[in-house]
Amino acid sequence: MNVIQNSELPRAALPGIENVTLAGSQNGLKQLSIWKNSIASGGATPPHRHDCEEVVLVVAGCGELHLDGQVHRFGPDTTLIVPRNAPHQILNVGDTALELIGVFSMTPVAVFFPDGQPIELPWAS
Amino acid sequence: MNVIQNSELPRAALPGIENVTLAGSQNGLKQLSIWKNSIASGGATPPHRHDCEEVVLVVAGCGELHLDGQVHRFGPDTTLIVPRNAPHQILNVGDTALELIGVFSMTPVAVFFPDGQPIELPWAS
Repeated sequence: MNVIQNSELPRAALPGIENVTLAGSQNGLKQLSIWKNSIASGGATPPHRHDCEEVVLVVAGCGELHLDGQVHRFGPDTTLIVPRNAPHQILNVGDTALELIGVFSMTPVAVFFPDGQPIELPWAS
Repeated sequence: MNVIQNSELPRAALPGIENVTLAGSQNGLKQLSIWKNSIASGGATPPHRHDCEEVVLVVAGCGELHLDGQVHRFGPDTTLIVPRNAPHQILNVGDTALELIGVFSMTPVAVFFPDGQPIELPWAS
């Protein structure tokens, strides 16, 4: 299947975070995974890291990227660069949903707490 | 720089195709490149291929993906999967701009005509 209707894809959630995996190993890919995430107002990812590069496209909303002890505020139409294995956290600090596209250089995507403990995800990654 | 303002990024064009490279080797990445492309009504990419995986997020507009001798029509809110080295072409068959996000599993992105001749791009890839 080379054309995927996003609206027909499975939806899953963690508290405050909705996910649709747009592309990944389930499509025969070996090196790319792409997630569509919506973080509710006041919500946040846990602090975490991946053993791969990550780029986040900010479609709508306002948030903070906590990375390497620094706080980076961002709004819509911005792009976030998260280096391999850098512990980071994304927080919705606005009044509306924070709409993101997360792009990863591996699939499936392994996610860890900063101390290395694996995080189990409720979605195909 | 971990937060990039997309509106401040350089713009470049091929006939009928506008490009903004949102992320890639210029940001220290080794395995990801992300382009924002707008293809004008009636416009198209040349037939081409990459020695990497590609996923295209269709933000707006209607088009055709020509791949492996097949024609796939697509509209907005769809995801296109292009396997490594598969010759392909994307055409805007609608009346409005075809707005795409192209995600690649390499950076810079090498682009070739189907016969292997390199295509020189006017943008940092």
